Amino acid sequence: MHALSSSDRKRLDALHARLKSQRRVNIGYPCNQDFDYGELLRFLSFSINNVGDPFGSTNYRLNTMEFEREVLADFARHTQAPAGEWWGYVTAGGTEGNMYGLYVARELYPDGICYFSEDTHYSVAKVLRLQHTRNIMIKSQPDGQMDYADLRETLRIHRDVPPIIFANIGTTMKGAVDDLSTIRAILDDLAIANAYIHADAALSGMILPFVSEPQPWNFTHGADSISISGHKMLGSPLPCGVVLARKSNVDRIARSIEYVGVLDTTIAGSRSAFAPLILWHRLRTLGDDGLRDMIHGCLDRAEYAVQKLSALGIRAWRHPNSVTVVFPRPPKAVMDKWIIAPKKDIGHIIVMPHVTREIIDEFTADLAAALQTGAAPCEPETAKRRSS
Amino acid sequence: MHALSSSDRKRLDALHARLKSQRRVNIGYPCNQDFDYGELLRFLSFSINNVGDPFGSTNYRLNTMEFEREVLADFARHTQAPAGEWWGYVTAGGTEGNMYGLYVARELYPDGICYFSEDTHYSVAKVLRLQHTRNIMIKSQPDGQMDYADLRETLRIHRDVPPIIFANIGTTMKGAVDDLSTIRAILDDLAIANAYIHADAALSGMILPFVSEPQPWNFTHGADSISISGHKMLGSPLPCGVVLARKSNVDRIARSIEYVGVLDTTIAGSRSAFAPLILWHRLRTLGDDGLRDMIHGCLDRAEYAVQKLSALGIRAWRHPNSVTVVFPRPPKAVMDKWIIAPKKDIGHIIVMPHVTREIIDEFTADLAAALQTGAAPCEPETAKRRSS
Repeated sequence: MHALSSSDRKRLDALHARLKSQRRVNIGYPCNQDFDYGELLRFLSFSINNVGDPFGSTNYRLNTMEFEREVLADFARHTQAPAGEWWGYVTAGGTEGNMYGLYVARELYPDGICYFSEDTHYSVAKVLRLQHTRNIMIKSQPDGQMDYADLRETLRIHRDVPPIIFANIGTTMKGAVDDLSTIRAILDDLAIANAYIHADAALSGMILPFVSEPQPWNFTHGADSISISGHKMLGSPLPCGVVLARKSNVDRIARSIEYVGVLDTTIAGSRSAFAPLILWHRLRTLGDDGLRDMIHGCLDRAEYAVQKLSALGIRAWRHPNSVTVVFPRPPKAVMDKWIIAPKKDIGHIIVMPHVTREIIDEFTADLAAALQTGAAPCEPETAKRRSS
Repeated sequence: MHALSSSDRKRLDALHARLKSQRRVNIGYPCNQDFDYGELLRFLSFSINNVGDPFGSTNYRLNTMEFEREVLADFARHTQAPAGEWWGYVTAGGTEGNMYGLYVARELYPDGICYFSEDTHYSVAKVLRLQHTRNIMIKSQPDGQMDYADLRETLRIHRDVPPIIFANIGTTMKGAVDDLSTIRAILDDLAIANAYIHADAALSGMILPFVSEPQPWNFTHGADSISISGHKMLGSPLPCGVVLARKSNVDRIARSIEYVGVLDTTIAGSRSAFAPLILWHRLRTLGDDGLRDMIHGCLDRAEYAVQKLSALGIRAWRHPNSVTVVFPRPPKAVMDKWIIAPKKDIGHIIVMPHVTREIIDEFTADLAAALQTGAAPCEPETAKRRSS
């Protein structure tokens, strides 16, 4: 009946070929390319939808909320959420998770000021502006962590206003973890009783549960909400994530709506019912042992990359428990071949499961060769103007 | 290597069987269940991502933005967007589209008051609260349209504050269209020069372009931004949508961010690269003629349902150009069999492409039988408490 034209079909073929060739060189973003969800694809023949609260009842029965709740319980375990005192849902990605945490915080403390470091992902400033939340940017240390002295001094000046701390559990560029114990100690020291901490654990939230000496980052260390991406360490063809928050806080912003038959506290109305299946499939097939193996493999190869680059005379480094390997901004020739996300004078590779030793070898050889030819580092591109 | 256990596999089989059986009885929600995206499933083996502005350049090359721009151009045509003066992106669903329109409006008029009718979807109040936008609910007429007299009187009292009108282009329950020409005339009559109109055209935005006498609803009628869902009339296994806005307004809120190499004005950071393929596939395979046939088929069957119910003595009605058939709230027996979204004393079916005459016949027979047995209408359920 209705079918694509042969030219349109060819365009899809060309897209597929392009994506296939680019997957291998995609080493600068924290997106695991190594997955197979083939046995889930049959669910894409239904208009499924997890509209509303995954723990409520919903009138829209074509949902996968049963699977979503199991996924959330797993994440609650990995983030050491307080038993029976957490709530959450599967989001469309990290921005929604951070928006949710900051929304709960703003509802608790309408006049609160949000503090976040200058190494924070740009989307956070966007969310704060959208939510009309007062905010102050805190200096970063050279390694990417929040400058705790600056945080303390800034908090001290504003002791009359409840602080909302936006903590990076793995910064975008350097993989730095803002230390929640240090932050809580500063708040205690200043006798600030009303405070909220949201942890943006997009990538490291699926690393730190599996290492022996994690930095303080989760609910037991003082987080009030945590956002973790699904398309990063776990891997997914669609952006998705999980946000978890203390239930008592969430209850305050709940409102009863009959249309979907639930107390709807999610930000999105309609939500993907496929994303929970992806996360469920990943968690069930790998299990904790499989996840631990996968993540330690990444950490081992990240260290391998640091050693390899260092041996070639390139200043490379990484944080403990981080798969993000930082080095000077690469020359243009390297950026043309490899998909890298540079910022100012640094570049990085993020050693995800699909980034093998062979790929690392090839990349380090390319980088060393480009530097030896005396090529200038790639200039930051001026952002191009959008047009319709 | 890693595989699902046989019990987990059985759970997926059971889920699939359940969804298959429920698809047919899902007649109360505006989700087209009639689609086949089989030839796109191969793209789910990549971690694709349309992060940032679809019209900008992005460093994340595993994207489908070329296809997204074609989808947007098609929607711009259907919404009569001003040539060269529109911008937009594919969203994760209707809420994000409405959030975007209201965000642009709030940035233009930070002290503006948003006006929306009491028939507006509950998610809008949620978004306005999240964005800290002042707002006033306007009364509705019995047929679901905004009460224009109440709007005029309320605007008159607040002439010192720029109004942000949230217009329903098809209300959730009754399919009523707020008339943009009438609204613009009121604004003109009150000499209000600074005003913004966002059109929530979730369902009807893909109906009205294809009928001969559409209600005034699009950019030529005064809309400043329009949100349309993809998983409603077009049909998609994942919630998605399109938001379009006047480019000059969007430019004001643009900010340049190097990380993704674009001027990023979207709300979400990472965005699905699969959703644009779905919309593109649908638009390309059906074409304008195919879409028109599909939509007129729905409108014809909606009228058939009204006639059939009326002949059985049931007070059923629908708006012009609407596939939403409204009737008194059905008894519980009917609600147990069919997936219906009731509200207070009314229920509705939404005659989407998968709702055939045979299904309408079966439903009307069930409803008539249940009413003849003297069954009481199903009581509104009290929303259940959520728990983790």
